[in-house]
Amino acid sequence: MASKTPVGFVGLGNMGNPMAKNLMKHGYPLIIYDVFPDACKEFQDAGEQVVSSPEDVAEKADRIITVLPTSINAIEAYSGANGILKKVKKGSLLIDSSTIDPAVSKELAKEAEKMGAVFMDAPVSGGVGAARSGNLTFMVGGVEDEFAAAQQLLGCMGSNVVYCGAVGTGQAAKICNNMLLAISMIGTAEAMNLGIRLGLDPKLLTKILNMSSGRCWSSDTYNPVPGVMDGVPSANNYQGGFGTTLMAKDLGLAQDSATSTKSPILLGSQAHQIYRMMCAKGYSQKDFSSVFQFLREEETF
Amino acid sequence: MASKTPVGFVGLGNMGNPMAKNLMKHGYPLIIYDVFPDACKEFQDAGEQVVSSPEDVAEKADRIITVLPTSINAIEAYSGANGILKKVKKGSLLIDSSTIDPAVSKELAKEAEKMGAVFMDAPVSGGVGAARSGNLTFMVGGVEDEFAAAQQLLGCMGSNVVYCGAVGTGQAAKICNNMLLAISMIGTAEAMNLGIRLGLDPKLLTKILNMSSGRCWSSDTYNPVPGVMDGVPSANNYQGGFGTTLMAKDLGLAQDSATSTKSPILLGSQAHQIYRMMCAKGYSQKDFSSVFQFLREEETF
Amino acid sequence: MASKTPVGFVGLGNMGNPMAKNLMKHGYPLIIYDVFPDACKEFQDAGEQVVSSPEDVAEKADRIITVLPTSINAIEAYSGANGILKKVKKGSLLIDSSTIDPAVSKELAKEAEKMGAVFMDAPVSGGVGAARSGNLTFMVGGVEDEFAAAQQLLGCMGSNVVYCGAVGTGQAAKICNNMLLAISMIGTAEAMNLGIRLGLDPKLLTKILNMSSGRCWSSDTYNPVPGVMDGVPSANNYQGGFGTTLMAKDLGLAQDSATSTKSPILLGSQAHQIYRMMCAKGYSQKDFSSVFQFLREEETF
Amino acid sequence: MASKTPVGFVGLGNMGNPMAKNLMKHGYPLIIYDVFPDACKEFQDAGEQVVSSPEDVAEKADRIITVLPTSINAIEAYSGANGILKKVKKGSLLIDSSTIDPAVSKELAKEAEKMGAVFMDAPVSGGVGAARSGNLTFMVGGVEDEFAAAQQLLGCMGSNVVYCGAVGTGQAAKICNNMLLAISMIGTAEAMNLGIRLGLDPKLLTKILNMSSGRCWSSDTYNPVPGVMDGVPSANNYQGGFGTTLMAKDLGLAQDSATSTKSPILLGSQAHQIYRMMCAKGYSQKDFSSVFQFLREEETF
Repeated sequence: MASKTPVGFVGLGNMGNPMAKNLMKHGYPLIIYDVFPDACKEFQDAGEQVVSSPEDVAEKADRIITVLPTSINAIEAYSGANGILKKVKKGSLLIDSSTIDPAVSKELAKEAEKMGAVFMDAPVSGGVGAARSGNLTFMVGGVEDEFAAAQQLLGCMGSNVVYCGAVGTGQAAKICNNMLLAISMIGTAEAMNLGIRLGLDPKLLTKILNMSSGRCWSSDTYNPVPGVMDGVPSANNYQGGFGTTLMAKDLGLAQDSATSTKSPILLGSQAHQIYRMMCAKGYSQKDFSSVFQFLREEETF
Repeated sequence: MASKTPVGFVGLGNMGNPMAKNLMKHGYPLIIYDVFPDACKEFQDAGEQVVSSPEDVAEKADRIITVLPTSINAIEAYSGANGILKKVKKGSLLIDSSTIDPAVSKELAKEAEKMGAVFMDAPVSGGVGAARSGNLTFMVGGVEDEFAAAQQLLGCMGSNVVYCGAVGTGQAAKICNNMLLAISMIGTAEAMNLGIRLGLDPKLLTKILNMSSGRCWSSDTYNPVPGVMDGVPSANNYQGGFGTTLMAKDLGLAQDSATSTKSPILLGSQAHQIYRMMCAKGYSQKDFSSVFQFLREEETF
Repeated sequence: MASKTPVGFVGLGNMGNPMAKNLMKHGYPLIIYDVFPDACKEFQDAGEQVVSSPEDVAEKADRIITVLPTSINAIEAYSGANGILKKVKKGSLLIDSSTIDPAVSKELAKEAEKMGAVFMDAPVSGGVGAARSGNLTFMVGGVEDEFAAAQQLLGCMGSNVVYCGAVGTGQAAKICNNMLLAISMIGTAEAMNLGIRLGLDPKLLTKILNMSSGRCWSSDTYNPVPGVMDGVPSANNYQGGFGTTLMAKDLGLAQDSATSTKSPILLGSQAHQIYRMMCAKGYSQKDFSSVFQFLREEETF
Repeated sequence: MASKTPVGFVGLGNMGNPMAKNLMKHGYPLIIYDVFPDACKEFQDAGEQVVSSPEDVAEKADRIITVLPTSINAIEAYSGANGILKKVKKGSLLIDSSTIDPAVSKELAKEAEKMGAVFMDAPVSGGVGAARSGNLTFMVGGVEDEFAAAQQLLGCMGSNVVYCGAVGTGQAAKICNNMLLAISMIGTAEAMNLGIRLGLDPKLLTKILNMSSGRCWSSDTYNPVPGVMDGVPSANNYQGGFGTTLMAKDLGLAQDSATSTKSPILLGSQAHQIYRMMCAKGYSQKDFSSVFQFLREEETF
């Protein structure tokens, strides 16, 4: 097997780390950078090449994957003083798997285009577990002609790689999904709590919802009420899963997109505020299904 | 086959009419009453016995089914001056398939018990179509010992008869399901509208949601966006289906139950207000999935 | 001075106690009843006549004031087995200063009318302090011809007696005021919290709001931010004042009235849910301005 | 009187036009620029100097006032290819009276500082009428030492010039005020509508609110119910005043600031969504008090 050309990787955090390892397993040599040098050590020990800035990555690799926590970090990594775009090679493929504002993705794509490179947004769904097992879903936005090339790399890290349309639509798909998820999770928690207070057994109510029109992923796959399902965060004191802070962040992105496109999101806004409140009330590190616990605390005198 | 004993039936409206006919098909002679005499004519012509008050029904039948539009109508039919409870026989089985406040169901059950009768609440889900084809779902609350007797009758009109617990829990299950349904429908409409404005194709976004955690009955079975699915109200200008007025009514019941049990329903309350607004803006007779249309109207100058 | 005819008084709780004492100061002999005998002792010691049921009060007095915590208590006191209406004299004046559902006030007025008596609703604003000092505001609904007679008694307990219209409008006025109060208090808390986080000094921001269009009673008279004003609950760890539980109760009444009249209250509903949540999070006995504290709790990791 | 040195003025729209005229009345020669040449004609005819870009303004004046519709326009006018900062003189005073994101004001201030100039944000409250009569209120953020110099100019255009603190706090004060205004206006509309449906006379209800704790600027100065007050937009079919679109824009800024500072704004978010909906339902050009009309439309069948 001919050796593969190296792939750049910027951002080796909770998600980036297992994603990069899956690329290695598929035989890709990596050019690594992270703002925290400690995050690179493991890869250096494994023989990968660690460099000292995103622009150095761009000098040594023409396919680069970035996995960063916020829009600001992504702007810094691409357009900053030592950013990728300072030394990006013509024809490079830049894939950003961060979850950020789609307007930022579009802006970065424009700047990349000026340099003769292609930028695609490819945010993931699925958490750290899926990142480890290579079962992430990638929602990809960008020039359709380049999708096959992106898919080749992303397929090493995920089991589902979905083409969504023009650049920014990967982010849009993720944001829309997570907003609907937040709404239906809170709705499930409210309905279960109300039903229990009206005398219904939670397992029976779950069964009824799931055979009726109230059925949703939050009721049938990830039920927020302790004792209803096994193997979900609600069965384990809301440990693990998808943290309330992360959900609040994604809802902030949905809010920003809705404000800038003048789209009304009456429940989406409210869901955003509820997860924001939860962060301030000690729920930030719990799974987002803990909204059931947040709602049901009893009145005390 | 031995002839069956007659069943009383009070309330022959849009839902009661086809339900009563299904009882007839199963060989039950009926004792009929409706406040609108015209509603009874069809049954009289078919040879059923029409009487002039709910108490007359109670005199002639010891199993009675009621299908009424509001709590007030149900109170009148049972406890009014000529109500069922005035002449109910000891041991009678009274099944109320109205959707009403569970607190009213409990009150009526108490009054029935004083008269030596058994009252069960058995609201339905599924609309006029399901009522015609005998495919309703009944959610039944009341004394468990009587469930088999109720099931015998309800099974003639529905394909699913679910025992929910003590009296009132049938209503509770229905209210909780419909509140969650309203929330996830509005959430689906908001997410689809936002996604479209961000450049996503609605069919593709639907596909992504349905393979992800945003999946719900409103996205995968009853999508509110015209052009995404066939055979749903959104494909037919939101005609047919479950009217906005009816959804607003059910959300009013959820609100009342939540207020009296002091259960927080942040999104449920908001959903209630949104459907209330829609009723005032010309959507009252459209299917409740028309919330997509309500949200997406364009800004005009 | 000719001795005055006795006045009946039912309900000697936190509010009723000081109100009754102000009637005594004005020379009215009282006929007293409370479900808790201990609440009557003080009045018995002072020489007032204590009886053992509301109907006994009605037998001995033709002007009766009731001050009760909920709609259910009011129904019991008037229409219960030993209620006022069992023995009310023709021509009696019944004044209910409870805060209850206006629909209940209307119903009680109808029943009183059948007995030849007049029922008026006269809820109060102002707390225990105003009750002691005789500075309550009464909002009165009922037959206009009887307003002067009501005013004579109510004027002993309050400095403001406002005629609002037909029976039930006293409740309506109180409910509408308190709903708007809740909304503007939460709005003030949100605006102050946001401003502080954006770098504004809270005293300066208060001054700016109060000279601008954001001005409201919650910003200029009862500011929720500690350190901005003296002599308000926020200056005293939210002790005293108007408890969160009571606000949640009044918002529940507003919600019920809005649901039954099909009036959209988007912010009123949300305010209701917020105060409901606060009751479950340890704020039930704090002044309702503590919503500022509820919102500002910091995100913790 | 010694002739005054010229003042630069960028943005001669609805607000900028009368503001610039008030500077002229006070004897300041102007250096004028607007993207729409037509907007400058009137000033040219009056003998003021019109130039062809913001940078030309900066070349000819060391005190510049900008009045622009959005954050993007402000960024363009200052940092664009022909922006003020391209040729700003050391020691210049730049006053931005646009209503924009406070984060943008801070960024522009940083860039100005690098060029040796001082940037202050000074958004206004009061509409076109107040701009004409020179009665605007300016909320000013920036270095305190320069406030006197700013006040000298702003005092020609407004009757109130308030120092709010560091740069960005002028915007913050305006945003917080307008968010609270939107919330209390919607609250007033909901309370008035509910009260009317419960049988209260709107003038009487207004009187009661204004002597009670529900009192706010929207109830006592700018009542949204037609027939209650004279001389306000509700008395004139909601013509004039402060348009719904502008309120929606300011609420979008509040939303952005709240999202980025992680401040919960439960009612502020909801108010934002309500004004967003109104823009899509034909209310965009009506005064923002028309929310009363929006809410009260009757249910139709």
